[in-house]
Amino acid sequence: MSNITDRDKAVFEAGIKLGAMYHQFVGTPISRKTADKVEDAIKSAISLQPYITNVEVHLDRTLMNPNEYGYTELTGSMFNVTVETQVGNEKCKAKIEMDNGYPLMKLIE
Amino acid sequence: MSNITDRDKAVFEAGIKLGAMYHQFVGTPISRKTADKVEDAIKSAISLQPYITNVEVHLDRTLMNPNEYGYTELTGSMFNVTVETQVGNEKCKAKIEMDNGYPLMKLIE
Amino acid sequence: MSNITDRDKAVFEAGIKLGAMYHQFVGTPISRKTADKVEDAIKSAISLQPYITNVEVHLDRTLMNPNEYGYTELTGSMFNVTVETQVGNEKCKAKIEMDNGYPLMKLIE
Amino acid sequence: MSNITDRDKAVFEAGIKLGAMYHQFVGTPISRKTADKVEDAIKSAISLQPYITNVEVHLDRTLMNPNEYGYTELTGSMFNVTVETQVGNEKCKAKIEMDNGYPLMKLIE
Repeated sequence: MSNITDRDKAVFEAGIKLGAMYHQFVGTPISRKTADKVEDAIKSAISLQPYITNVEVHLDRTLMNPNEYGYTELTGSMFNVTVETQVGNEKCKAKIEMDNGYPLMKLIE
Repeated sequence: MSNITDRDKAVFEAGIKLGAMYHQFVGTPISRKTADKVEDAIKSAISLQPYITNVEVHLDRTLMNPNEYGYTELTGSMFNVTVETQVGNEKCKAKIEMDNGYPLMKLIE
Repeated sequence: MSNITDRDKAVFEAGIKLGAMYHQFVGTPISRKTADKVEDAIKSAISLQPYITNVEVHLDRTLMNPNEYGYTELTGSMFNVTVETQVGNEKCKAKIEMDNGYPLMKLIE
Repeated sequence: MSNITDRDKAVFEAGIKLGAMYHQFVGTPISRKTADKVEDAIKSAISLQPYITNVEVHLDRTLMNPNEYGYTELTGSMFNVTVETQVGNEKCKAKIEMDNGYPLMKLIE
């Protein structure tokens, strides 16, 4: 790769944030009633990090089928998260969402 | 160990909850401004689990010294968490708190 | 709960270890070819902790169905882990294994 | 951001891998004697993921100062990890290492 640009950095930072978020929160006990609290915590955790300009976090409640104890665990398939980063004048938008059964992280623009 | 009692089960469940909580949330990006949201998420996650009757979560803000980007990570030393469990008529109360520089989990009563 | 006994402590420590292990490692990218390395790391991580006298870790390879990229993630249902603890003369054995579709942690003896 | 290129994708994937690795493994109980097993597990976990062409993992043993129980926890400052990704003909190399007291993830080439 030739000289590293602000565009590269904005893209790299977006990737870091999505990868970090996923592996920090997967496995958290969750239910439809507590989903908003977990969303808030995820959003606050991403927002603190450098180069972040916007974050949207939605967890898919339709997948939160309770086990016999009334809850489930946060899985990758529940994530619908968009992050926007900026380095210099370069902006990047990326998201994680289900794609053919796999929680895919992808660049949007 | 002889026959397993309700007391044993209440104690075992309290241990599970503290161990799980610790390793689920350690590493979460946090600051004094977002600490309440992370506390809420932790409390909601523990409360969902079986045999829990009460949960108190306090994260020590005095230890949240911001790095050059204005935040830090949740560490074991910040946890001040108490859980209460009940199995049959047997109740257990346990907590994690700093003890001589080590985040110690211990039975209270 | 009345006076805390060594038996209580042995049981509590076993619970901590299983809860911690679960939430530390759930989500780890894994395949049948790398499962032994993850087993070794889990075993080494549990073995270091206080009051542990024995650890057995088996990850169920039959559940490691590869996604389109050739791997999967470690889930709770793959865990078959036994821990033994001792405090004073009191010993405790506990395990996590699938029980009716739920990864149940239970006391054995 | 204009049209997404293979270069963007290679950079994005490198970011994802480093962010994911960090938050998956931070907090793992570790000592100088078990560090090699954790390194192996981290390397195997990253290597499985799409677009990865090379991975180097070194955990800084000089920072693994044992607590009173003889171990410590894996922290961000111990990571010295390099990942290489390739999408189409575009390659990216990135790493995480300590930089002025902060575990910095950065693009190398």
